[in-house]
Formats: sequence, C-alpha cells, structure tokens
Amino acid sequence: MPLIDLENVKTVAVIGGGTIGASWSAWFLAQGFTVRCSDPSPAAREAAPGLVAACWPQLAALGASGSAQEALARFSIWESHIQAVEGADYVQENAPERLELKQKLLSEIDAALPVDRVIGSSTSGLKASDMQTGMAHPQRLVVAHPFNPPHLIPLVEIVGGQQTSEEAAADWAVAFFNAHGKRAIRVRKEVPGHIANRLQAALWKEAAYLVQSGVASVEDVDLAISEGPGLRWAIMGPHLTFHLGGGTGGMAHFYDHLVPAMQTWWADLGTPVMDAALREQLVEGVQQEVGDRSIADLAAERDRKLIDILNVLSPDPQS
Amino acid sequence: MPLIDLENVKTVAVIGGGTIGASWSAWFLAQGFTVRCSDPSPAAREAAPGLVAACWPQLAALGASGSAQEALARFSIWESHIQAVEGADYVQENAPERLELKQKLLSEIDAALPVDRVIGSSTSGLKASDMQTGMAHPQRLVVAHPFNPPHLIPLVEIVGGQQTSEEAAADWAVAFFNAHGKRAIRVRKEVPGHIANRLQAALWKEAAYLVQSGVASVEDVDLAISEGPGLRWAIMGPHLTFHLGGGTGGMAHFYDHLVPAMQTWWADLGTPVMDAALREQLVEGVQQEVGDRSIADLAAERDRKLIDILNVLSPDPQS
Repeated sequence: MPLIDLENVKTVAVIGGGTIGASWSAWFLAQGFTVRCSDPSPAAREAAPGLVAACWPQLAALGASGSAQEALARFSIWESHIQAVEGADYVQENAPERLELKQKLLSEIDAALPVDRVIGSSTSGLKASDMQTGMAHPQRLVVAHPFNPPHLIPLVEIVGGQQTSEEAAADWAVAFFNAHGKRAIRVRKEVPGHIANRLQAALWKEAAYLVQSGVASVEDVDLAISEGPGLRWAIMGPHLTFHLGGGTGGMAHFYDHLVPAMQTWWADLGTPVMDAALREQLVEGVQQEVGDRSIADLAAERDRKLIDILNVLSPDPQS
Repeated sequence: MPLIDLENVKTVAVIGGGTIGASWSAWFLAQGFTVRCSDPSPAAREAAPGLVAACWPQLAALGASGSAQEALARFSIWESHIQAVEGADYVQENAPERLELKQKLLSEIDAALPVDRVIGSSTSGLKASDMQTGMAHPQRLVVAHPFNPPHLIPLVEIVGGQQTSEEAAADWAVAFFNAHGKRAIRVRKEVPGHIANRLQAALWKEAAYLVQSGVASVEDVDLAISEGPGLRWAIMGPHLTFHLGGGTGGMAHFYDHLVPAMQTWWADLGTPVMDAALREQLVEGVQQEVGDRSIADLAAERDRKLIDILNVLSPDPQS
C-alpha cells in the first residue's frame, strides 16, 4: 500500500506537549499544518499553548506568516494519544525515553492510524528496531530525531529499524521534512547517538580532556570552537571544509598531505576521567565564562543569534 | 625589560608572503598598521600585493576603511627577513613548517630586533620550545596560530615554550590581538595541534568512521554538522552549549544527567582505517556533495557566508 502523498498531509499529531513537543508543534503550525497534540499530564496540557506561543516570534522572524493567535487556532491539545492521532496524516512522537512506554504507545497509535501514514519518533537514545516490536505495521516507523531547539535547527536525522520499509517510510520522511524547509539526513545503520550526537560527543570528549589536563580554561576551549572552526561548521560540514583545506587539489590532496598530521593528533587525543573534580572544574569554568548572564539570558542570546545566522544563510531570507 | 606598549605598535613584520602571510598582512593593514613582509622567492614577492588586495573587499565588508590601494601604500615586500623586521614592533612568522629553517630564521630575527618586541609564529605543527633553542632572547617567542582564513577567522591560539615568558610575552600577545578584534586564547601546555585542530581532528575521526562504516554518506555527515550543532557552535562553544542543554540546572545538571549517555556514545566511537578505499570513498562522496561547484566557487561561498555571519554576530557591525 502506498504512503499518503506529501501534498495530502494537512494534520500532524504531536505526542507529548513538553518542551520538545511544543517546539515541534510550533514548527508544524508555521508550515501551515493543523496540529493535534497530546499529553497525559493536566499541567502539561495547560502549559502547552503558552510554550507554543513563546516559539512564535522566533518563527515569525524566520518568515512564518500570521500571528501566534492565528496559529494556535489550528492547535488542539488532548489527554490521549489515541484522540490526538484521529485524522492525523503524520505522527511525531516525543514521549519519555523509556522503551516499554514507547512500545505500548506506538502499538496503540499504530492500531488507531490508517496504515498509509508514517510515524516518526524524536528519540535520541532508543532504536526503531526495539520500539517497533509490538506494532502491527512496524514498516511505517522511523526515528525522526530533531536537534534542539527543534523549531529553529534544520537538522532531522531519519533512521529506520529492522522492520522499517527503508524505501517507503524512510524516503517518505526525508522528502516530507525537506519539502518543508528542514534538512533531513538518512542514517543507514542504527548506532547509539545517531550521527550528530556522536560527533558532538567526540568533540566534547577532547574538549573536556583538554580542560582536565590544564591545557586551557573552559572559556578558552569554548572560544577555540566558537571563534574558529564553529564559524566554518555553520556553513560547511567537516569533509567540505577539508576539501577546501586541500587547496586546488581538494579532498584528494588533503587526504594525501594532511592525514599524516591528523593521525599524529588522533594518537594524542585523550579521555577525561569523569570524576567529581572534573564536574567541579567544568561547573566553575562555565560560571566564569557566563559571568552574570542567566541561563534564560544565554538561551535568548543563542536563539536570537541562531535566527540571524539562519536568515543570512538562507538564499531568500524573506520567503 | 618591559615589552613595548600596545599603543606604540605601528609596524608589523610578516615573514612569508604566501597565502597565510598575505592574509595576515591584509588583516594587519586593516587594523591600520604598516606591514613589512618578506619572502625569499621572487615569484612570491611578485604575487604578494595581489594576494593582499584580493583580501581587501572582504575586510571592507567587515568594516575596514579606505581602499585597497590606500592600504597597499602601507605594505612593502622584502627579500630578506632581516630587512622586513627593521623598525618592526611585532613580528608574525609564517615560514615553511621545517624546524631547522624556523630555528635559523627566528635566531636571525631575534638578533636584529630590539628585545622589547614580541615574535609570534603561525606554526600549526611545531613547538615554541623547539623553535626557540637558538634564540638569544627566547623569552619573547610565542606561537600565535591563526585559523584559516586568518584575515576572517577571529581565533588566534597563543602558546609559549619552555623559555617563553608566560607573564610577559604570552600575556602581551593575547592583549595585542584582542585589542584589534581577534579572539586570542591561551594554550597553557604545548600539545600537538594546539586546541582547535585537536577538536577538529576528534570530530573528523568519528565523521570519517561513520562514512567508512556505511552509517551515512559524506554529504549527510556534513549536513549533520552544518545543519545541526555547527549552527550552535558558531555562537557558543561546547561547554556553554551543554550548560544550556542542562536546562535551569545548567552544567551541573547536564553533568549529572547526560554524562552517562555521553559515555555510552564515547564507548561506541570508532577509528577509521586510513586506506585507499576510504580515500576513494571520501573523494567520491565530496564530489557528489559539491556537484559542479569548483573549489574557487566553494571558497567564495564560504567566505561570503563567513562575513555575513561575522557581521550579524558582531555587536556593532559598522564599527
């Protein structure tokens, strides 16, 4: 049975109304969808519209049309995931990261949803292969992992499980997100951390090691990224960056001439000891770095700069 | 003897007139300095003013005043490094990465330069401790490692050697660069790759491993950075990013709650086998990613976007 045509997707169910669910909801609303959100917690249901509304000025700064009020007219919040998926053309699941809970939830959603609809899970730590075991139609489940904050960061990692239809569900999910301005990538094997979190983890492993070894302060290690390679990585990934680092010979030249130095560096990379002393060193180092800026100040600063960067990188910032 | 006051620095000697030397020269000219550059190669001396001029429109886009012609009136190119350092208040050395060559060059510069002037080396692969062995005044030598392209990227890594006066020369160099809009950081131990190249190497090790393992294409691994964490790293380094990832509990909460997941990912990180097959895979993958964009096209695209990002991140883009 073919999956629903992309142009027929009008309604999206978002399971979970916390920070991630609200951020996803705001993004789907900005794409013009009707959003049916669910959360078993009354407090979460109460808070959800406010969380969605809080994302709206940022989405408007990226080109979303209409007011938050107009968008919220297309938003509803339900106690049950079964209610939320009624009439949904796509489901984005953001339940807590507990396998049994997700298995139960996904098999119930699966039973309630027409078989031509794809289900994406925001999980960062679980495998589709494990989550889909109780589903009658496991072929339509994919991991669709966003990057925080989901309404701003374009990346979505699409990963299928053993029973997922790679050619159908995974292709469909990539096409669906890319049609609406996300940049979906295809993770072809189920590995812990998908891709972006593994790359972050690899970088931070060395960053924490350098702090622990006394090579530099927390702030200076941070600046070594944000005033250096981080500025390039907002534009191009590591391979393309090295392709340019190879001069006119590109990646082939880079590989032949710079990989020996790279291997010397690899041999010297370290592993931090994750003890109480390092915790203290990192907490104090971050405190020195941030001074009197609160976490709310810093988050607002990050989001404002993120929007500015996304707008200047966009081929048509006004669209 | 105290080092020269920052406000008395008027003339900078740039040793080496190739790509890095020309880029440094353009940046020093944009800060208002007189630049005395040297290169033993007649072809390099011929080409240098053109390389400097080619950087100028980019520096102008970042706020440099005056024309390239006006800037080049403050630029001279010499055959000998001894001629170049005459009257120099600071020396930036960019000779080829050969220890004996740098040792000879630096001891000759040292002999010709008043003792209150600091010498910075752009070396990415050598240690100040090894380069300073033949100098009569080794205390004034620091590594001042830029990040490509030096006239655009703010980062400068300052590293002293065993005989360097940390309190004098390294402090002076940090203050000098920061006074002119660079972001200089202090590397307190001599480690291979300083800091930024180690962090890049750590990330790319896993990136290449994921490609080799068939987890994702070269293009998708690149997008996993440039559409995800790369956008955040242009704004904040890894520790500050995780401080925000910890919610209201900041780094302490992050450490207590997310380090276990991080360690799971660390345990699964890989090491690519650097063989001919991987070279082929990377070269082909990059080719697919770039399509018909030449390296010159890509470099122009990167620099244009870099300038746009630097301008939106600057507190006062017109200054």
